[in-house]
Amino acid sequence: MLVVMKAHASPEEIQAVCDYIEKLGLRAHPLPGAQRTAIGITGNKGEANRGNLEELSGVAEVIRVSKAYKLASRDCKEEDTIIRFDGTNASIGGRDLAIIAGPCSIESREQAFAIAEKVAASGAQFFRGGAFKPRTSPYAFQGMGLEALKIMADIRKEFGLRIVTEALDNESLDLVAEWADVIQIGARNMQNFSLLKRAGKKRMPVIIKRGLSATLEEFLMSAEYVMSEGNYEVILCERGVRTFADHTRNTLDLSIVPAVQQVSHLPILVDPSHGTGKRDKVLSMARASIAAGADGLIVEVHHQPDQALSDGPQSLYPEQLITLMSETEAIAPIVNRSLVHGIKLTATTRS
Amino acid sequence: MLVVMKAHASPEEIQAVCDYIEKLGLRAHPLPGAQRTAIGITGNKGEANRGNLEELSGVAEVIRVSKAYKLASRDCKEEDTIIRFDGTNASIGGRDLAIIAGPCSIESREQAFAIAEKVAASGAQFFRGGAFKPRTSPYAFQGMGLEALKIMADIRKEFGLRIVTEALDNESLDLVAEWADVIQIGARNMQNFSLLKRAGKKRMPVIIKRGLSATLEEFLMSAEYVMSEGNYEVILCERGVRTFADHTRNTLDLSIVPAVQQVSHLPILVDPSHGTGKRDKVLSMARASIAAGADGLIVEVHHQPDQALSDGPQSLYPEQLITLMSETEAIAPIVNRSLVHGIKLTATTRS
Amino acid sequence: MLVVMKAHASPEEIQAVCDYIEKLGLRAHPLPGAQRTAIGITGNKGEANRGNLEELSGVAEVIRVSKAYKLASRDCKEEDTIIRFDGTNASIGGRDLAIIAGPCSIESREQAFAIAEKVAASGAQFFRGGAFKPRTSPYAFQGMGLEALKIMADIRKEFGLRIVTEALDNESLDLVAEWADVIQIGARNMQNFSLLKRAGKKRMPVIIKRGLSATLEEFLMSAEYVMSEGNYEVILCERGVRTFADHTRNTLDLSIVPAVQQVSHLPILVDPSHGTGKRDKVLSMARASIAAGADGLIVEVHHQPDQALSDGPQSLYPEQLITLMSETEAIAPIVNRSLVHGIKLTATTRS
Amino acid sequence: MLVVMKAHASPEEIQAVCDYIEKLGLRAHPLPGAQRTAIGITGNKGEANRGNLEELSGVAEVIRVSKAYKLASRDCKEEDTIIRFDGTNASIGGRDLAIIAGPCSIESREQAFAIAEKVAASGAQFFRGGAFKPRTSPYAFQGMGLEALKIMADIRKEFGLRIVTEALDNESLDLVAEWADVIQIGARNMQNFSLLKRAGKKRMPVIIKRGLSATLEEFLMSAEYVMSEGNYEVILCERGVRTFADHTRNTLDLSIVPAVQQVSHLPILVDPSHGTGKRDKVLSMARASIAAGADGLIVEVHHQPDQALSDGPQSLYPEQLITLMSETEAIAPIVNRSLVHGIKLTATTRS
Repeated sequence: MLVVMKAHASPEEIQAVCDYIEKLGLRAHPLPGAQRTAIGITGNKGEANRGNLEELSGVAEVIRVSKAYKLASRDCKEEDTIIRFDGTNASIGGRDLAIIAGPCSIESREQAFAIAEKVAASGAQFFRGGAFKPRTSPYAFQGMGLEALKIMADIRKEFGLRIVTEALDNESLDLVAEWADVIQIGARNMQNFSLLKRAGKKRMPVIIKRGLSATLEEFLMSAEYVMSEGNYEVILCERGVRTFADHTRNTLDLSIVPAVQQVSHLPILVDPSHGTGKRDKVLSMARASIAAGADGLIVEVHHQPDQALSDGPQSLYPEQLITLMSETEAIAPIVNRSLVHGIKLTATTRS
Repeated sequence: MLVVMKAHASPEEIQAVCDYIEKLGLRAHPLPGAQRTAIGITGNKGEANRGNLEELSGVAEVIRVSKAYKLASRDCKEEDTIIRFDGTNASIGGRDLAIIAGPCSIESREQAFAIAEKVAASGAQFFRGGAFKPRTSPYAFQGMGLEALKIMADIRKEFGLRIVTEALDNESLDLVAEWADVIQIGARNMQNFSLLKRAGKKRMPVIIKRGLSATLEEFLMSAEYVMSEGNYEVILCERGVRTFADHTRNTLDLSIVPAVQQVSHLPILVDPSHGTGKRDKVLSMARASIAAGADGLIVEVHHQPDQALSDGPQSLYPEQLITLMSETEAIAPIVNRSLVHGIKLTATTRS
Repeated sequence: MLVVMKAHASPEEIQAVCDYIEKLGLRAHPLPGAQRTAIGITGNKGEANRGNLEELSGVAEVIRVSKAYKLASRDCKEEDTIIRFDGTNASIGGRDLAIIAGPCSIESREQAFAIAEKVAASGAQFFRGGAFKPRTSPYAFQGMGLEALKIMADIRKEFGLRIVTEALDNESLDLVAEWADVIQIGARNMQNFSLLKRAGKKRMPVIIKRGLSATLEEFLMSAEYVMSEGNYEVILCERGVRTFADHTRNTLDLSIVPAVQQVSHLPILVDPSHGTGKRDKVLSMARASIAAGADGLIVEVHHQPDQALSDGPQSLYPEQLITLMSETEAIAPIVNRSLVHGIKLTATTRS
Repeated sequence: MLVVMKAHASPEEIQAVCDYIEKLGLRAHPLPGAQRTAIGITGNKGEANRGNLEELSGVAEVIRVSKAYKLASRDCKEEDTIIRFDGTNASIGGRDLAIIAGPCSIESREQAFAIAEKVAASGAQFFRGGAFKPRTSPYAFQGMGLEALKIMADIRKEFGLRIVTEALDNESLDLVAEWADVIQIGARNMQNFSLLKRAGKKRMPVIIKRGLSATLEEFLMSAEYVMSEGNYEVILCERGVRTFADHTRNTLDLSIVPAVQQVSHLPILVDPSHGTGKRDKVLSMARASIAAGADGLIVEVHHQPDQALSDGPQSLYPEQLITLMSETEAIAPIVNRSLVHGIKLTATTRS
């Protein structure tokens, strides 16, 4: 259910409605919009007894949301969600495109800084690097953990790049939340509901990568898990699905970009590195992603891909990242977007 | 096997090599390139006895082609294949983008002309319209057949548009070859090898649409079937594959565009209408296709899609086609392409 | 639409109803059942004007068939279709299981007879062998054609086995219809509607193999194509679908067996040879097929699989066919089936 | 790497080799076989320096395991793994078939006992019931948690059934390990590596359900994660994969049964309830699973499926479970298996 407040409802009226909802044993999710605030109502108890919500002061109407996802749906919030990062010109969603680049794994301080320098120089606003790696084999390199997080925190200080990194479980989620700017939930954990709920309790942006065989509805339901806990800064990311096709490692399903945008207000990025698994197809698919209307890209970059501990074959060379940025910049206006380069922060970046 | 001729080999030398090959009981496929001619050798007999081919006059070298597809491979012909249409500025492959637009089915002379006028006005160079329809149900409209072909021949005369239409079997193939400019082989017939061979005996362009579960190699092998019969004007077309995803009718696999271009010299188009099955996603995917590097688009357009006898829900409105053309034009230079509008023929080009 | 005749309607009454239907410009399909005859009505014209069918003599009721497939549906014919082969104890559908075995391709008279002897000795009732082969590569062995059909006709005479072989196009279909007992339509041609219609004009059994990405409805619609032309002896065959899984060549979808049986009266076989592509999994999947309720099996057998011109790796050794037969025989009673061994014909049954 | 000990190596020799391996900074996994013990060696450091292992007393040979999975492979352990449950005649793997039955979710003590009584009466040896439910929607019933575990512990006491239930995260895993007999890792968590490692630290059987798009290798690598932590009692379970097919909720891939058995010594069960999602196909697929060679079944049963809080449409009625048991019993000898009914324990079952 959704309570739509009148255009000029006061903060006190909104609070009063929220309090009323909580007293009914339900959960209230105030979602401010440009024109007016909507208050999503969630709860486990099936269709809620709505009490006399409609009669409360400031309430315009009470409507049922028929989709399985509520808070993630455009029914609930009409305007696109834009996630801003204080002290920077970086944002995800809205007019400006977001570019997230970096190595699959942080392998050493030297490697991370060498690549971060190239990423910053390219104009990308975000640095990604794996600290905790979900590897198919228990015997493969599992990531440098906390040490990698500290290196990335130094990269933020040095280059002004915002840090995106994956959390695998409760322990790593708490660490990522402490040290990074954006929590990434990987494709294999897209339906790790326990982890999603934990991410929902944080108050910082969460990127959810689409599972290898996730439908649109399942993808949005995973966002809903995070949002239902009160964290509304959710970003979706297409990264290829599993099919019979063998010319790429996964099949990048770009049609999910307009499909998400039609039914949800959440931003959606594309990861053409995992989406193809092959360096020589990343630039083509990056262009296609932007042209399809994506809100940005996540790409893997490595200065020495042949020596990378993971995902070398799909990592761009730094000069290819430059090309990617200029092609993105060229396509942007055609889809009513712009590409604002990340800038070095003058003041401290994270309190 | 492949015979690479010297740069300045004479036509007589080329002919002599071809004759020699045929005398060995094999088939010779001379493929002229910008620098020099290559002669593909095919035959059912496994690895051919190459005789003393290397010693013939004008021969530079004889090499084995290790891929399953020979004539379709870049090993055999390095330059992109460009298919030109005499008397027009339309072409498929190479720098200029090809746009093929029209209704799913020809339903009447009025409908066809009304749509063709819009297609011509948009600047597209080709008109598509179904005369013979491969329908899942034997009880569904099966197309107007020969009558539709005649209507489209009149459209060519009236608007200067080149005609693309599907052939389903030997009978319709002969009719399409007689009346249209490009034979289309549909996705369901991609491995109808008998039909492919028959198309290979014609001397006119053939579009092969990717089967719903075809791998890259199978796709190219279908092209090889046509080429092995001596028809080298083959155009590939991605139109979505079948997966678990349910937000589109098929899953458009754009990564096959760079994948084809890497291993083959044949042009590849994209059909975002069948590739999504939903009108509201066609423009996004059309932009993405061009940005991915496709050689052109096939799209369905209808002036009254709600009344279409087939595929109404995925047909663009004429004004959307205008948007598609202008977006294509804007993206083209970013991928080193250009969009030359079709022009009305001054003289008849096909008797 | 479906006309259900009264239990004791006379042949004249049935004929009169059919005549009436044809006069309406529709097609009548009388389908005799154990209790009473149903008459399916088909036609291209959308929902037919039913005239005053209900008032004709002998008519019990007129009902709409809501499914896309009509003649193939259980709504139209409640009892299982059983296809009998005169002069033999072989049948497909009903209580007795049908076993079809033989080499992928007929390679020579010696090879075919050597294998046929083993097939006959095993108790299988049908011999399969490819005369016309749908090969992915134009350069691969394409089958011995008519010569293979003649060899198989001699095998029928010698061993009393009924002959099943694939038709690829109109020409081969006419030949197969002339020389064999059952026409097989391969997976790649499942939606070659032109070929299906041609098969529908014959009056002999047709096996339709499921396409690599065919849904249940599409599968039944292909049967409907054949039946709509008046040939009601259609047999379905599951042979694996294409998925991401790589431990078998295709993924055998046995759940389609009960799914077909629930909505259709047509028999359904399983081909575990193509369904797995690996000899060491064929016996397991053959057992599973019978246990799932299949009406029989199609399996590839070769006396020298390492030397087979096609599909050697999935062909059983003759002694494995013996095992398959005895395991089938053991499982049969658990699913209310029996396995009657094929017997040598005492007189020729087909001129 | 794998150290194969001599047939008569003493426990002291085995221990000495293990100590030596651990001193190299690696991990030793002694795996006793019928003839001799093998010691698997794992570690993160790529190919280990083997020191002079071959010269240690009692060592027969040191071999490299070329597959990505080591401890799960037949190379490492030739004999089938059999998991026994003390104080009962229940086991998983080996000759005796294991039947695990029960409701999707524990909904109340009454419901659980009502169903458990039917399960025990049927002869099944294991009771399954969800305490922690991985639901696509955060608003759906999430399970009764610890209370459900306590109810199931009482069911074990009352009926002698061994308890199988799913763990979702660290907290629930510890609870399940405390209260149940077998930890189940669900399909959505098959690559929740953190959870797998935690399960690997327990010393009790773990069932891993195949992910919706997991390959054979990925499936076995998940088992390897558990085993690499020292827990060798791993049981695999096929439960359907995600494909385009829409006649069942998932596509049950039974060919993975012989595929697993060929390369791994671990038992593999089949879950035809999730594998089809439709009650009317469960019995067919249960028979097919046993005929394919599965080591047992997991099925959902509910006495009032129409009122089930989850998965009602795929739950068997109790009388169908009786049929399933008798059909399983009939097929068992054909695949060299037997079905020993669970019996009520006379003494306490779990200390």
